[in-house]
Amino acid sequence: MDDSQRIERRLASLVSEAGGSGCAPGLAAAVHHAVFPGGARIRPHLCLAVARACGGAASPGALAAATSIELLHCASLVHDDLPCFDNAATRRGVPSVHRAYGERLAVLAGDALIVLAFETMANEQACTADRRLALIGTLARAAGMPWGIVAGQALECEPQVVLSDYQQAKTGALFAAATVAGAQAVGADPAPWRAVGEYLGEAYQVADDIGDTNGNAEDLGKPTGRDAELGRPNAVGHLGLVAASTRLQELVARARAAIPECPGGEELRTRFSGFTQQLLQPRRARPAA
Amino acid sequence: MDDSQRIERRLASLVSEAGGSGCAPGLAAAVHHAVFPGGARIRPHLCLAVARACGGAASPGALAAATSIELLHCASLVHDDLPCFDNAATRRGVPSVHRAYGERLAVLAGDALIVLAFETMANEQACTADRRLALIGTLARAAGMPWGIVAGQALECEPQVVLSDYQQAKTGALFAAATVAGAQAVGADPAPWRAVGEYLGEAYQVADDIGDTNGNAEDLGKPTGRDAELGRPNAVGHLGLVAASTRLQELVARARAAIPECPGGEELRTRFSGFTQQLLQPRRARPAA
Repeated sequence: MDDSQRIERRLASLVSEAGGSGCAPGLAAAVHHAVFPGGARIRPHLCLAVARACGGAASPGALAAATSIELLHCASLVHDDLPCFDNAATRRGVPSVHRAYGERLAVLAGDALIVLAFETMANEQACTADRRLALIGTLARAAGMPWGIVAGQALECEPQVVLSDYQQAKTGALFAAATVAGAQAVGADPAPWRAVGEYLGEAYQVADDIGDTNGNAEDLGKPTGRDAELGRPNAVGHLGLVAASTRLQELVARARAAIPECPGGEELRTRFSGFTQQLLQPRRARPAA
Repeated sequence: MDDSQRIERRLASLVSEAGGSGCAPGLAAAVHHAVFPGGARIRPHLCLAVARACGGAASPGALAAATSIELLHCASLVHDDLPCFDNAATRRGVPSVHRAYGERLAVLAGDALIVLAFETMANEQACTADRRLALIGTLARAAGMPWGIVAGQALECEPQVVLSDYQQAKTGALFAAATVAGAQAVGADPAPWRAVGEYLGEAYQVADDIGDTNGNAEDLGKPTGRDAELGRPNAVGHLGLVAASTRLQELVARARAAIPECPGGEELRTRFSGFTQQLLQPRRARPAA
């Protein structure tokens, strides 16, 4: 089974189990809609790739961490799309959760996905208790306050924002969780992996900003031009298109350079080489990292 | 230090730490507003009371669990008050979070509180790793799908609802978490404690429904008559006031009877005796269980 299959199957089983046993059918459907069909699942792929680079192929702990991270990502998309934020009508080429199921179930689906992420990690019996707790700490740091994705999203409500702080929290935090968790899940030292994830996350955010400015809605599966419309921080608006593209390349190069010595380091560096182009491809068809 | 002080101090330190270190100031303020000033903190008091009854006075694990449960409760209040749900202008006698800080920060404050609850439990070093994981499982079950408070809230979006299912999930789940966690935190068998919490939670919901129908907004610190207005399940609407009051008394009696043999069982039973009256008192002044 390849990584994509492992990720999809685990997500499917988690979502189906959570939404079974007499769960409110509307909530179960909204949660399923939030997770399927997925995008490129770039964060869980990154987590598994790092676990493999650290010598832990097919680690159950890494798969639990990878899917937990994707659940947190899906939760943030559902809440970011709400009318009070982006008021996005579409996501991944289909109606956003609040358009398909209403605002109330969109709020609750996001909440339920956050809970499910922690529950998934806590329940992974194949991983030692200490590792599970460390991974839960990594998830919490990436999701919450003071610098996780929720805190990053909250910077949109501040009158002035440092762009790099915003990108680090809003996107970098969950990418960093993916690389750190990949190492933690197989017992490798996670410390050097944080920078790898942070660089990739910032690169991803810059690519997203380029897509928002220069992409088209059909390719991206979501509306474009939203940052300018909503007055949100955007690297292209901030730096211009040429400098933003240069910045993107620099960030991927830094991520490659930050990969520590590990059994599969060379393979991972090779994989990252094509990352800049992959990031700029339409989101729905983007291959995994 | 009494239980109230322990609970308030721990909550204050958790909220202050999460909102420090460069966290978006609006989010930090919204989260603080969601947690302080508190209500009766009935769930964390219940958790600590059960831990004490099981022989574990002043257990750090129980305090972590108790405050985590209160954080989940605060998160649910913030999201329940949103314009798409109750559109409540006030809560605990002050403006609701979305009125004071806007809808966006209210959504994010709820999200951040859910994350903080799990983070708090994962970080409690004074508790063994296995106990922390069991307690995280208890929190997740109470909060999420298929029968936690989020799933209970989602039943409001269903065309037909069995009242007891709604009450069990919306309120009973977190009360059950409080009693179960109190036992788990001190290494006692948690199984018999679930029923105690479920009965008390249902009693609390019935009292809340009586307050919504017969109370006044100033005493309760929140608007009344909302259930009828919003077409939500309400025990008084369903059963009538007399039968609802009888039901409340029955449920508290069942909770008392379900307390298992334990070192402080008699003291706890005595404490529960006054619970019916306490539940019917104005919320802002209600003494702890």
